[in-house]
Amino acid sequence: MKRGRPDIVHFCMLEALGSPLNRAGLLELYVHTIGDYVVFVDPSTRLPRNYNRFVGLMEQLFSEGAVPPGAEKPLMWLRPMRLELLVRRLRVERVLLLSERGERRRLRDIASLAAEEPGSTAVLVGAFPHGDFSDEVYRLATHVYSFYPQSLDAWVVVSHFLALAADAMGVV
Amino acid sequence: MKRGRPDIVHFCMLEALGSPLNRAGLLELYVHTIGDYVVFVDPSTRLPRNYNRFVGLMEQLFSEGAVPPGAEKPLMWLRPMRLELLVRRLRVERVLLLSERGERRRLRDIASLAAEEPGSTAVLVGAFPHGDFSDEVYRLATHVYSFYPQSLDAWVVVSHFLALAADAMGVV
Repeated sequence: MKRGRPDIVHFCMLEALGSPLNRAGLLELYVHTIGDYVVFVDPSTRLPRNYNRFVGLMEQLFSEGAVPPGAEKPLMWLRPMRLELLVRRLRVERVLLLSERGERRRLRDIASLAAEEPGSTAVLVGAFPHGDFSDEVYRLATHVYSFYPQSLDAWVVVSHFLALAADAMGVV
Repeated sequence: MKRGRPDIVHFCMLEALGSPLNRAGLLELYVHTIGDYVVFVDPSTRLPRNYNRFVGLMEQLFSEGAVPPGAEKPLMWLRPMRLELLVRRLRVERVLLLSERGERRRLRDIASLAAEEPGSTAVLVGAFPHGDFSDEVYRLATHVYSFYPQSLDAWVVVSHFLALAADAMGVV
């Protein structure tokens, strides 16, 4: 239910890395995968637009631990890490989980929370095709919100959140 | 300069068709192609997420004129049509062109223009890798705006505009 769709991660990463918020240096992007790995991503990374080349790059990342392999400053690198440890290391005050099961709020209000104190908020979006977050993820969240009454594609959630956050921070 | 990158169109269409604004029935999507064809898209269309299947679908669209071929209500259909004629048929009052060369405005202000009178505004986004719009496109535009000082990926422009328009219309 939560694997086998790297296309979802591809679209989400393209939206995040190409967003004005990231361009303005106001975004950190992490990908937590099944099997408890975390992909660390340099914000200047230009991902392949071509899906097959993206999959090749991720395969290299998982076999070599970093891409490009052996680079002093890699664009992406991999660590075995539970989501809980990642979130603890980020030292944020708020962990917002975007979930259909969450409390309904205007997206601008959710985004404003993140914009208020940049650096103090983590936002979790599920980039898997079916199923719900694990209990562990719900326990990590300080707030669980929903901004639309139907389920949305993960990349639409990412892009719409980043757009409203960029608006709240005056970036666009 | 303006062809050979169906991946750009693929991402833009996925963002548009999956957007809350489209789900709420407030969006019409058209794709004008090199060679002066217009792709008409039923708003309920669920595009293939897989790039290779998307390309196959577009090939079928160009060879058969519609997909699925022979359907009474196709999901997408093709007409030879200049952009000017398409825009004239939409009977809109405003044609907003999003271009790096445009006048710098806050995105929320551009989106509010479109939200003020739904149905009276067309928004043009370039989904090609390099080069500028033709003079014909600039002549069609009633307003030319830019909301970020650097060039952005087309799908980021689409998603961010739709997010702020959805916000302005109270959809998210």
